[in-house]
Amino acid sequence: MNTWAIVPAAGAGTRLKGKVKKQFLSIGGKPVLARTLLNLSAAPEIDKIIVVAPSSEISRCKREIVDEYGMVKVNSVIEGGSTRQESVGFGFAALPDDVDLVIVHDGVRPFITGAMISSVVEAAAEYGAAITAINITDTIKEIKDETVVSTLKRDSLARVQTPQCFRHFILNQAMERALLDGFEGTDEASLVERLNVSVKVVEGSAANIKITTADDLKLAEALLNIDFK
Amino acid sequence: MNTWAIVPAAGAGTRLKGKVKKQFLSIGGKPVLARTLLNLSAAPEIDKIIVVAPSSEISRCKREIVDEYGMVKVNSVIEGGSTRQESVGFGFAALPDDVDLVIVHDGVRPFITGAMISSVVEAAAEYGAAITAINITDTIKEIKDETVVSTLKRDSLARVQTPQCFRHFILNQAMERALLDGFEGTDEASLVERLNVSVKVVEGSAANIKITTADDLKLAEALLNIDFK
Repeated sequence: MNTWAIVPAAGAGTRLKGKVKKQFLSIGGKPVLARTLLNLSAAPEIDKIIVVAPSSEISRCKREIVDEYGMVKVNSVIEGGSTRQESVGFGFAALPDDVDLVIVHDGVRPFITGAMISSVVEAAAEYGAAITAINITDTIKEIKDETVVSTLKRDSLARVQTPQCFRHFILNQAMERALLDGFEGTDEASLVERLNVSVKVVEGSAANIKITTADDLKLAEALLNIDFK
Repeated sequence: MNTWAIVPAAGAGTRLKGKVKKQFLSIGGKPVLARTLLNLSAAPEIDKIIVVAPSSEISRCKREIVDEYGMVKVNSVIEGGSTRQESVGFGFAALPDDVDLVIVHDGVRPFITGAMISSVVEAAAEYGAAITAINITDTIKEIKDETVVSTLKRDSLARVQTPQCFRHFILNQAMERALLDGFEGTDEASLVERLNVSVKVVEGSAANIKITTADDLKLAEALLNIDFK
């Protein structure tokens, strides 16, 4: 099956101080986005990759990441939108017609593994839609005005990550519907769920963190030195 | 105000392989529980500490942790129950009558800071009940049979941590009510919430992890070398 990855990396990175956007910051001497793309490139399931970057960073991304690391699976680096969902939509629009499966993976989650990719692709091929998630071990509460509203039952809750993977025609329908309805989701699966398509959940990893703050960057640096099983 | 800490450290640690219970495993050459207790001891707000340990570990805990590190604020090491809630209850029963504020903090959260302690004590003194929590950045979904049921609105959700702090009479009432009703909560605040007492939320930290798996232990080792602001 022809499987393409869309990698949204268009975030402004406003939560991290400094001029360099977080996807271009280095951990262990290599940009976060380069690590993400190298891990995606190493997966035999993935045929091609489309990177969605801020317009100001496209040439730099091509030069310092794609060319620098010889990433032959990267098909193109295109300009992102004003939201994550719009950026993924632009990536989707750039796919060729004969794509069967689409993987979406955050550019700022460099610790994606081959096992995650295999299992999410396999589940999406079988069920049409699949996401990675991990169990919640903390107590989760609903908060309003810095005061507890309620405590949720955590047994049935999961923290969702990327990669997420979908049959092309399902994600297409989900994105069209969201656009029509003006619905904005925090992940792609939430658009698919609105079609009443069932979404399969496979095992993510606690190490598969999203780098959005300066602390995350320090944590990521430390994670590089840990040998997780 | 007379402020005592109860530190549940009675978990069997079944999720971590090996014979040594997780609270006694070392990170950076020091047992997890010793780190937790040293950080609590360093807080000027805390007067005394009651540690709740498995019966088989009490003498070892006294010898290798309390005596070894000269922890003068540790009032006693008592035997735990079969659940976390029961263990905290035993700790509560061991408090003297003149205690004003009670802090509950997991023995396996060694990265508690002085700032967290100050803010949770201050908020509990003012409002009667306070917890530490951090914002949720991941998408949270309800899952059943490895399939998505729904996506929650994450804006209003928080991941709850310890320390949690309460006026003595409020926690007392909450624990009595829970016992009567046979209610088992995943944290102490959930017992207080059942009284319709409002619980204030103060800022925790992403680094304030709970060590429950072998991966957590590796992560904790790495966190030791990070200089969080």
